[in-house]
Amino acid sequence: MTTSESGFPTVAMVGGGQLARMTCQAAVGLGVHMRVLALSREDSAAQVCPDLVLGDPDDPSALREAAAGATVVTFDHEHVPIATLQRLIEAGVAVRPGPSALAHAQDKLAMRERLSNAGLPCPAWRRLAGGLERTARVAVLEDFAAEIGWPMIIKTARGGYDGRGVWHVQNLEEALEVTDAQLPADVDWLLEVAVDFVIELSAQVARSPHGQAVAYPVVQTIQVDGMCREVIAPAPGLSDARATQAQRIALDVADLLGVTGMLAVELFDTGSELLINELAMRPHNSGHWSIEGAVTSQFENHLRAVLDLPLGSPAQRDRACVMVNIIGQDRDGIYDAYRHVMARDPGLKVHMYGKTVRAGRKLGHVTVSGEDVTELRARAQHAADYLAGVIDE
Amino acid sequence: MTTSESGFPTVAMVGGGQLARMTCQAAVGLGVHMRVLALSREDSAAQVCPDLVLGDPDDPSALREAAAGATVVTFDHEHVPIATLQRLIEAGVAVRPGPSALAHAQDKLAMRERLSNAGLPCPAWRRLAGGLERTARVAVLEDFAAEIGWPMIIKTARGGYDGRGVWHVQNLEEALEVTDAQLPADVDWLLEVAVDFVIELSAQVARSPHGQAVAYPVVQTIQVDGMCREVIAPAPGLSDARATQAQRIALDVADLLGVTGMLAVELFDTGSELLINELAMRPHNSGHWSIEGAVTSQFENHLRAVLDLPLGSPAQRDRACVMVNIIGQDRDGIYDAYRHVMARDPGLKVHMYGKTVRAGRKLGHVTVSGEDVTELRARAQHAADYLAGVIDE
Repeated sequence: MTTSESGFPTVAMVGGGQLARMTCQAAVGLGVHMRVLALSREDSAAQVCPDLVLGDPDDPSALREAAAGATVVTFDHEHVPIATLQRLIEAGVAVRPGPSALAHAQDKLAMRERLSNAGLPCPAWRRLAGGLERTARVAVLEDFAAEIGWPMIIKTARGGYDGRGVWHVQNLEEALEVTDAQLPADVDWLLEVAVDFVIELSAQVARSPHGQAVAYPVVQTIQVDGMCREVIAPAPGLSDARATQAQRIALDVADLLGVTGMLAVELFDTGSELLINELAMRPHNSGHWSIEGAVTSQFENHLRAVLDLPLGSPAQRDRACVMVNIIGQDRDGIYDAYRHVMARDPGLKVHMYGKTVRAGRKLGHVTVSGEDVTELRARAQHAADYLAGVIDE
Repeated sequence: MTTSESGFPTVAMVGGGQLARMTCQAAVGLGVHMRVLALSREDSAAQVCPDLVLGDPDDPSALREAAAGATVVTFDHEHVPIATLQRLIEAGVAVRPGPSALAHAQDKLAMRERLSNAGLPCPAWRRLAGGLERTARVAVLEDFAAEIGWPMIIKTARGGYDGRGVWHVQNLEEALEVTDAQLPADVDWLLEVAVDFVIELSAQVARSPHGQAVAYPVVQTIQVDGMCREVIAPAPGLSDARATQAQRIALDVADLLGVTGMLAVELFDTGSELLINELAMRPHNSGHWSIEGAVTSQFENHLRAVLDLPLGSPAQRDRACVMVNIIGQDRDGIYDAYRHVMARDPGLKVHMYGKTVRAGRKLGHVTVSGEDVTELRARAQHAADYLAGVIDE
């Protein structure tokens, strides 16, 4: 069945993490029927979605089952094989974002090539083929180092996230140590200059199949150990001109790659220029603030975009909004902490993802909106630290 | 199982309508596990809640199944027999609001007696026993009419909602015609003065078992044919003193009756005084604006209250907020209308309840927030009328 009796659509989302969970929450308001393809009933989104298909997104038959009768298939992560998606499309399924866009979120080398060729601002980069012998590797590394110097960033072109698959190396010896690792046959290394940035930014846009696009306020992201820890909307101290430039870059990327749904473009602001760091073609951690902070959340606009519905206003509702992730530590007892932070700050919005506590795991996030960024950051950081168990008072 | 591994609770909600649906949506953010007791899989809340018990709330075994292992049982309507709830409590289940409070939402005569005895402001009222012969009825009606005159309001003490079970009668003849109807054995009639009000108000509070309470801004409600059509927050033109008085009345009612969860007190403002009209001990149509309009929605605070968690701030986020219900007409095609209103007003928030279209049925609501009430009302009314099919452009 494609639609309910009243013509409302079904969206099949691949992946059962917190992004799918929060998309399900937005779908309740829209009256859109959600189906989730998850690995287990305990997955974050599986807990809140009655129409559940259990299976691995790498398994074409699980994917076909999830797509059956759905109006559109979309994703809470970028790890579905492109060939599998191509076969779905050949079978008549609408897949958004499409594989030709998604390929650039899956493969950082493909992304760098395409964006550089289009004149979009990227840090200096170089391909290092995955299978090279040490001598050949030394030649590529030394040649690139002659251009950009040390330290250098090394990434696997595919498969990394939340800081995994990324190394910051100080010299040739460390670079060789990293690249001694055996990569899968089709994966190369991406070498990049270690950008000396002032702040990191994220520019999010929603884009629909008929080409309508809206740009969210540009936010500052603060990473710890390669994982997003805090987001401030709008980015404090960013000039209007620089913010507009960041939004322009994100709109250009979305248009160039034909993205449908949400696109996040993570950027380095070096003080003198903006450089594109990473892309995500789905709702993104840097947009969680939009649930309370914007007129239309990134989750609602992702659904509206992939369904080719008119997009909602991305305007920010308050002068400032701060989101801090709750990152699990080695201890539990989170429900007591939850009670405590609710009592301490009645204006706090707590979002829990229904996950069991594990060190380094994103368990939820907190959001506060208001006027004064310094005060909002203090409130949000305290609550997130208390919930994680980092602090006791 | 009372809680998940991390100690998070399970809330069992009796009733599968839109109030349960929007409570499920709030529970996703809180990380609270929801279970819904619904009549059918097609019920509004059943569509979005994986932990579903199918059955009739009048059936004690269905209710026991829904309550099994839940941290607390709560309601999206007030129609569960008190004796059934008493047996649940005897079996060790937490029921909130409790039957001694709920009895006053189920029975309008019990409510009038209790509130009048406590000195809370009610319209003049009189009991008319359900089983009386015509002559005895004439005596009661004429005696009360001698006090308050005609017209008069006649209600069944139990079982009415959305204007059902309420009659506006002009004279004795019409009153006799209404009261000729055979009522169930335990149901009486409630006679009330037809209050000549300037506006109707709703004052909502959340109250938790340990007695914490918060009061929402007082809103104006506009009824059409006894059904809530539009809500304006805060009530335009209401003085601070009168708003505070309305909040005070709602807090006093919650305290007097020992309500836990959300309480809505519907009030008449006659220009010179406030009079209590009806009570609802659950999330209420007059509080739907709070999803976007308040820091903490009525649905989140209902959950926090029944779980005895600290309550969230009920503060309004914008100067004004308007909610208009989408009330079904005799035609469908609502998805096309939905697309149209989204294109016309990107700042509009559309909430659909997943119901099939039927004349007179609440299918959803729209909300807009901003500065200018006149503009917001025009936008919300247009969108709701367009979605309902009342207008074509």
